[in-house]
Amino acid sequence: MYHKSVTELSSLTAEAFKTFLDSFDTVLTDCDGVLWLEMKALEGSPDVINTLQDLGKKIFYVTNNSTKLREDFEKKGKLLGFKCQLDQMVSTSYIAAEYLKAKGVQKAYVIGSTGISQELDKVGIENFGIGPDILNSELGKLVENYQPESNVKAVVVGFDPHISYVKLMKASSYLGDPECHFIATNTDESFPASQNLIIPGTGTFVSAVATCSGRDPTVMGKPHHFIVDAISKNYKINPARTLMIGDRCNTDIMLGSNCGFQTLLVLTGVHQLKDVKNFTETKQEGLVPDFYLPKLGDMLPLIQQVIN
Amino acid sequence: MYHKSVTELSSLTAEAFKTFLDSFDTVLTDCDGVLWLEMKALEGSPDVINTLQDLGKKIFYVTNNSTKLREDFEKKGKLLGFKCQLDQMVSTSYIAAEYLKAKGVQKAYVIGSTGISQELDKVGIENFGIGPDILNSELGKLVENYQPESNVKAVVVGFDPHISYVKLMKASSYLGDPECHFIATNTDESFPASQNLIIPGTGTFVSAVATCSGRDPTVMGKPHHFIVDAISKNYKINPARTLMIGDRCNTDIMLGSNCGFQTLLVLTGVHQLKDVKNFTETKQEGLVPDFYLPKLGDMLPLIQQVIN
Repeated sequence: MYHKSVTELSSLTAEAFKTFLDSFDTVLTDCDGVLWLEMKALEGSPDVINTLQDLGKKIFYVTNNSTKLREDFEKKGKLLGFKCQLDQMVSTSYIAAEYLKAKGVQKAYVIGSTGISQELDKVGIENFGIGPDILNSELGKLVENYQPESNVKAVVVGFDPHISYVKLMKASSYLGDPECHFIATNTDESFPASQNLIIPGTGTFVSAVATCSGRDPTVMGKPHHFIVDAISKNYKINPARTLMIGDRCNTDIMLGSNCGFQTLLVLTGVHQLKDVKNFTETKQEGLVPDFYLPKLGDMLPLIQQVIN
Repeated sequence: MYHKSVTELSSLTAEAFKTFLDSFDTVLTDCDGVLWLEMKALEGSPDVINTLQDLGKKIFYVTNNSTKLREDFEKKGKLLGFKCQLDQMVSTSYIAAEYLKAKGVQKAYVIGSTGISQELDKVGIENFGIGPDILNSELGKLVENYQPESNVKAVVVGFDPHISYVKLMKASSYLGDPECHFIATNTDESFPASQNLIIPGTGTFVSAVATCSGRDPTVMGKPHHFIVDAISKNYKINPARTLMIGDRCNTDIMLGSNCGFQTLLVLTGVHQLKDVKNFTETKQEGLVPDFYLPKLGDMLPLIQQVIN
């Protein structure tokens, strides 16, 4: 029986690495945990990405992070040393706005941050819900006094540290209308922070709204296809010649598997080799990358040995 | 092929109803939506329950509601005209406290209300978390300054209108310890209120914590067996001679189906005949009651015609 297995990229001979390097001309790379952590570039990541670009590879920065505008990602990338342009940045807030615009939605309720509201503003979709919205009265009074806005045809759920009972009630109530779209920017469950700390991610809020409303969301982020669809509008992707780089197997690597890309896991973020071992043993082959590296920066000497 | 079907209790002949009435000596009845709505008894419900008790049936009031003490339910029942005593009241907060006491837990983090904290107090389990706990700073500062309490060996999730990001983070973080019990009082998804309003129930918060922590909860409430276990400690239930009355098929009726009880759905709460029709068609037979009545009070003339 065939078991997909993962190869450490550094273990390839120079010749085999050259074959690998020549095998793709498009790169989709995740950002947090691959290129940077918070406001710090991961060592060597800018050099690797810039070198790949200099070698003629087309780079796309694809992120499930819904808290910023594409312009913000471009600015951050440049600040941290990446030679990136706006048309290379693909974020879930951006594609959510494009999706709803194409559906003719005129008004949306948002659980999320200004990354979403500003992308919706840019495509002319009226929206509301950003910021704190807490229970200020007895629950009975909240229910009694609730006045829904009219013509809300989408609920967008992204990352929102102000998640509250009132927000969950409003989102679920709008979704009582079967014509109201239920959009999740992504379903990343949590951000592991330390041994004693698990930080809720967007998937946590999406589960809550899905449970309360009895609706299934349309998920914009990886591992779903919308990010690739968005790129494909202006650029022809050849799956056989595309590499997906990520730190999370159930989003980044799964997207690559779903699309027929080669996949590279870096161990500077969510998933580690023990997770990959577990995915292999439980035959979740879509979660198993083709290659891994301890960090993306480790690719730099491999590239240098074959291009000089 | 056998399809379970539901019979309107009022359609039985007097003789057949007498046979039904003689077929059970124990009644488990849900409260909200069957006996009362908010602070108002449903018409005829007290007379039916009191008459059944006068006929020698043993009545248990079983509720997934986690917001009150058993003493509060007894007081409410008496106020609304039910001849009930404390030992007939079984609530999910009470059985959660008993369960954790039996497991030797000494400290618990609670998403919920004083119904839970007071039941925990009564069995000597230190607990914290009740009341508002909102994000007062940047998320980064919250994460940086987070100091978990030591020795937290249970997270209890019940109904909490103060649900917040901070609470979800704390609950999930304590659950990072595999020895920490994850208890849900119930998983009722929502309370339908009107056409435009869906009110989040405990199941909404349980989904959020389950998603963030990657853990599955132990659920105290209906349709799970813990409520019946709690009754069975002091009273011998004969399933073949027990009737379960409820308004929600996926909790009340399913509990009855799981335990081999007869089941009666009343249409004064969550589920209606169209839902039952759907459950029948999709062969979810555990959700299909044996009998239904528009309201519990409709049983009074049926009883009177056979006992006079």
